[in-house]
Amino acid sequence: MFVLSSPSGTGKTTIARRLLAEDADIALSVSVTTRPMRPGEVEGRDYFFTDRAKFEAMVEAGEFLEWAEVFGNLYGTPKSYIKAGLKEGRDFLFDVDWQGTQQLHQRMETDVVRVFLLPPSIAELDRRLRGRGTDSAEVIAGRMARAQAEISHWDSYDYVAINDDMEQCFTRVKTILAAERLRRARQTGLVDFTRELMR
Amino acid sequence: MFVLSSPSGTGKTTIARRLLAEDADIALSVSVTTRPMRPGEVEGRDYFFTDRAKFEAMVEAGEFLEWAEVFGNLYGTPKSYIKAGLKEGRDFLFDVDWQGTQQLHQRMETDVVRVFLLPPSIAELDRRLRGRGTDSAEVIAGRMARAQAEISHWDSYDYVAINDDMEQCFTRVKTILAAERLRRARQTGLVDFTRELMR
Repeated sequence: MFVLSSPSGTGKTTIARRLLAEDADIALSVSVTTRPMRPGEVEGRDYFFTDRAKFEAMVEAGEFLEWAEVFGNLYGTPKSYIKAGLKEGRDFLFDVDWQGTQQLHQRMETDVVRVFLLPPSIAELDRRLRGRGTDSAEVIAGRMARAQAEISHWDSYDYVAINDDMEQCFTRVKTILAAERLRRARQTGLVDFTRELMR
Repeated sequence: MFVLSSPSGTGKTTIARRLLAEDADIALSVSVTTRPMRPGEVEGRDYFFTDRAKFEAMVEAGEFLEWAEVFGNLYGTPKSYIKAGLKEGRDFLFDVDWQGTQQLHQRMETDVVRVFLLPPSIAELDRRLRGRGTDSAEVIAGRMARAQAEISHWDSYDYVAINDDMEQCFTRVKTILAAERLRRARQTGLVDFTRELMR
């Protein structure tokens, strides 16, 4: 379980998409949501769509690894779906905020690798949050406050990568993923392999 | 502290040398030894040379991170030397066996990254241990027994890399080192950097 978090405007979405496109062994964790399906979205690819009553029943039954309410819609990671995938040796990418990360970590401790992306400077973060320059000062200030609130949780992550250059940052994220796959505890075939070496 | 261990005949020395040659930020940990200096060796580069009485006094005083006796000679990693280097932000490569690794880990827990290299097969290990084919069956059997004894400790390491191809194995080792440098806890500048982002 590979978790990417960052304040908005730090290039996380671009990096997540490239990772999913280039690495066939990692899949995006598909969430359950109560948000209505949008044109072009596919059930089971973009989300598992459901209604609030069913979602709340799943919460009650402890069927989520993490869940949150965002702008009135509920989003959650279904435990059974992830556990079945992990059992088959699949890796999952999670694009969640620090609260989602904390919930995932509490439930799946050793299996979670937490990566936090940081902008290269406050000036650059400000520039990215301004977008096309059509938003009011209040809207931009609100974005900055949310970004800084997210940044304040940087120290609950395993790895930190600064996105000063998209290409380099992507390489750093790939490097972390590649190294974590070399962890002894994740190479399930080693028990038999070393037994063979010691025959 | 980056520890490489492997049974002999697994290419560890080649990989360690390449890493030291290509990466200016990691230095080989220089050991103290009671073994006599050989021609071409340099005090402080290859070893810190000393005598048995002084070595034993250092053991008594707890001045070693790890030490061992090999074929009648004493070898040890001096604590002060490593701690001073780490404080300056230097990384150290350790070429030690499982016992040295265990001692290092007990004393410096979080700072130690333990990597174990495995041969690709028992047949290949046997081939490599035979060397030039001039050794007796007993000598080769002894080497194999020692190699297998070392392999039996593979599961006390953080990472395992199989040396089926020297180039790929070297890349794996470099990847682990690069990722470990991205660990939050090792990026000491992040406290000030994130404080600046949250101003």
